[in-house]
Amino acid sequence: MESFFEVKRPDEVFEIIDRLGPAGEETIPLTEALDRVVNRDLTAPEDLPGFFRSTMDGYAVRAKSTFGASEGLPALFELTGEVPMGRTGEGVVREGQAVKIPTGGMLPAGADSVVMKEHCHRLDETTIEVSRAVSPLENVIGPADDFSRGAVFLKRGHRLRPQDVGVLAGFGVTEVPVFRRPRIAIISTGDEIVPVDRIPLPGQVRDINQYTIGALCRKAGAEPLFMGLCADDFDSLKGIVERALPQADSVWISGGSSVGTRDLTLRVFESLPHFELLVHGISISPGKPTIIGRSGNRTVVGLPGHVASALVVAAIFMTRLIFRLSGYAGLPRHWGAEVEAELSRNVPSANGREDYVRVKLIETDAGLTAVPVFGKSGLISTLVDADGLIRIDMNTEGLYQGERVKVMLFHS
Amino acid sequence: MESFFEVKRPDEVFEIIDRLGPAGEETIPLTEALDRVVNRDLTAPEDLPGFFRSTMDGYAVRAKSTFGASEGLPALFELTGEVPMGRTGEGVVREGQAVKIPTGGMLPAGADSVVMKEHCHRLDETTIEVSRAVSPLENVIGPADDFSRGAVFLKRGHRLRPQDVGVLAGFGVTEVPVFRRPRIAIISTGDEIVPVDRIPLPGQVRDINQYTIGALCRKAGAEPLFMGLCADDFDSLKGIVERALPQADSVWISGGSSVGTRDLTLRVFESLPHFELLVHGISISPGKPTIIGRSGNRTVVGLPGHVASALVVAAIFMTRLIFRLSGYAGLPRHWGAEVEAELSRNVPSANGREDYVRVKLIETDAGLTAVPVFGKSGLISTLVDADGLIRIDMNTEGLYQGERVKVMLFHS
Repeated sequence: MESFFEVKRPDEVFEIIDRLGPAGEETIPLTEALDRVVNRDLTAPEDLPGFFRSTMDGYAVRAKSTFGASEGLPALFELTGEVPMGRTGEGVVREGQAVKIPTGGMLPAGADSVVMKEHCHRLDETTIEVSRAVSPLENVIGPADDFSRGAVFLKRGHRLRPQDVGVLAGFGVTEVPVFRRPRIAIISTGDEIVPVDRIPLPGQVRDINQYTIGALCRKAGAEPLFMGLCADDFDSLKGIVERALPQADSVWISGGSSVGTRDLTLRVFESLPHFELLVHGISISPGKPTIIGRSGNRTVVGLPGHVASALVVAAIFMTRLIFRLSGYAGLPRHWGAEVEAELSRNVPSANGREDYVRVKLIETDAGLTAVPVFGKSGLISTLVDADGLIRIDMNTEGLYQGERVKVMLFHS
Repeated sequence: MESFFEVKRPDEVFEIIDRLGPAGEETIPLTEALDRVVNRDLTAPEDLPGFFRSTMDGYAVRAKSTFGASEGLPALFELTGEVPMGRTGEGVVREGQAVKIPTGGMLPAGADSVVMKEHCHRLDETTIEVSRAVSPLENVIGPADDFSRGAVFLKRGHRLRPQDVGVLAGFGVTEVPVFRRPRIAIISTGDEIVPVDRIPLPGQVRDINQYTIGALCRKAGAEPLFMGLCADDFDSLKGIVERALPQADSVWISGGSSVGTRDLTLRVFESLPHFELLVHGISISPGKPTIIGRSGNRTVVGLPGHVASALVVAAIFMTRLIFRLSGYAGLPRHWGAEVEAELSRNVPSANGREDYVRVKLIETDAGLTAVPVFGKSGLISTLVDADGLIRIDMNTEGLYQGERVKVMLFHS
């Protein structure tokens, strides 16, 4: 029996989800490391870059030899050679001596700074004039300026961005220890659903939810396992859930908007070993009839049947579940990327529940306008037309035309 | 010869990039369609859902039979059957008759609306009481309410989100016509660069740029082709560029921060057939020494050698090139996702160039604070520490501590 008191607030649901841990670990090649989450603090195995490096094309010198040099009174230096790129120079730079060096070149022994070539004037084969003084380490990167040996350079739970992949390359980490991508088994139920490659008979529709939810899983970093369609009966659904559980970290049942199917989903979950019901209904619209539970260390989810409700619940709550199963520390900042817009009309909302309103963004001279996309939550067109969602707080009775609202973007 | 007047403003560079067209087209399976860009307007091959569908568990009736029904004066209906899910009901619903129907069920002939089961009371096997009047089409989705046959449901240049994959499934589009992912050949130059699996000798560093830039390409939707390392000489570089050109839509040379290497890149480009120099220097910092050109229908790019400069240029300009080559109409809204933050200190900037300052975001009670990450642009740590970039306009001399700034997020 569903009662009012069992319905959970969104913040309670987030709290429940945040208690769930990472799905597992593995080691992957560096070329596949983008967007993956590292499973431990990674410490620098060595100093980076590991040697004194010039940041300019110029001449390596001892800084104190340039003391007092100026345009009016340039200092003379003996040019004793050139540092070849990628190798150590020969000999030692002494006072009054200079060695030509390219950007990125290794400082020769004895030198502590580089004079930009723009401040040098070559007089002959072995003499240059320097018209500007430099300080020690000027135009030079020190051996540990990027990272010192032993320093943590990437933290456990960090999702790898291009530059993070770059620093792993810099340290020669060709095998990267990461959390495994969570595997989400997706089951579509409903006697009216047919596979996408079939022509529906009257009364039938193709399987939209499995594809929508599967794509969302992939977008959030999970690996969807498409378990196919299932008829609306206990034995079939229990059978497919039992087949899915050993392969997946989480099993999601989507479809079945009738009360009968919802009850069926719950009954199947309740028949699983060590089942614990965590959430039975969330005080949001659309998306109230959502079920979350655990069977052993697997999370099982009953998504609402209407396609728009299912996508809203998946976008708000299930991506968070994926981030937790992925070992992500915190939440990706860009995931809930928001833009500000002006609301085009009043939007009423019932007190005591959080509303997610689909909106389309229109660019006007005055900035962005958010136009609510109304329509029944069984219509996928309402999602295709929309650019994002606005949230109406529980304790608000609605939003007014002209109000500034934050729009959570659907990622495109 | 590089002269001041050849250096282009960022807006001029965007304009040049925006003239470049999509790389090619292909047809892919629906399961791989997420994040791909459709190459034509797609029109609905049929009405969706294609039949009158109930949005509630209840009873299908003729609306006019419910006229006047209320709690105090319920209307009596003859219950003549039940619509099985996914099939057409038998017989025709006449005045005063009702047929049980589940959410998602197909309306039986004769019925035009559904009374929610909460407003019905079953008296016996064949009789129900209805305590609320409904209007025609109430609690019903019409055959073309989602999409009408012939309507454009996805536009050319649209990048497919989860719900768009869903609507393709709804129409049974199992093969999706899209633009091909652009192939970006990446060449690392520099005599000091060694492969990631090698231990660098003094003066050498591992190949950071190729991995950083390759990951960024992938993130933006392109397919990176890793062409490997190349020594700093004309023949080697020309050879590898000529090998890359037939395989790639764009060839990017990265590395080589010395003036000599930059000149080399330009000389190699100028030796290509039908070469046209489009950009030689951009008035930004970091990232000024950027080269963009065309050889036939291939775009060739010389990125700055310093790793931070290369990533800034790639993030700001080269992702835009990828979006153009991908056939993307407009720009993805979430790509340049921004958050507002308060600047932690003054940041000076030179007039006449646009500055991109790396910042770290710190959460405080008052909101986000943006802390500039200073450091030489040869240091990858400045990118690893940073959460995003703030842009300082050309005509601004800097930003003040406490100012509200917009931070373009590095995607995590």
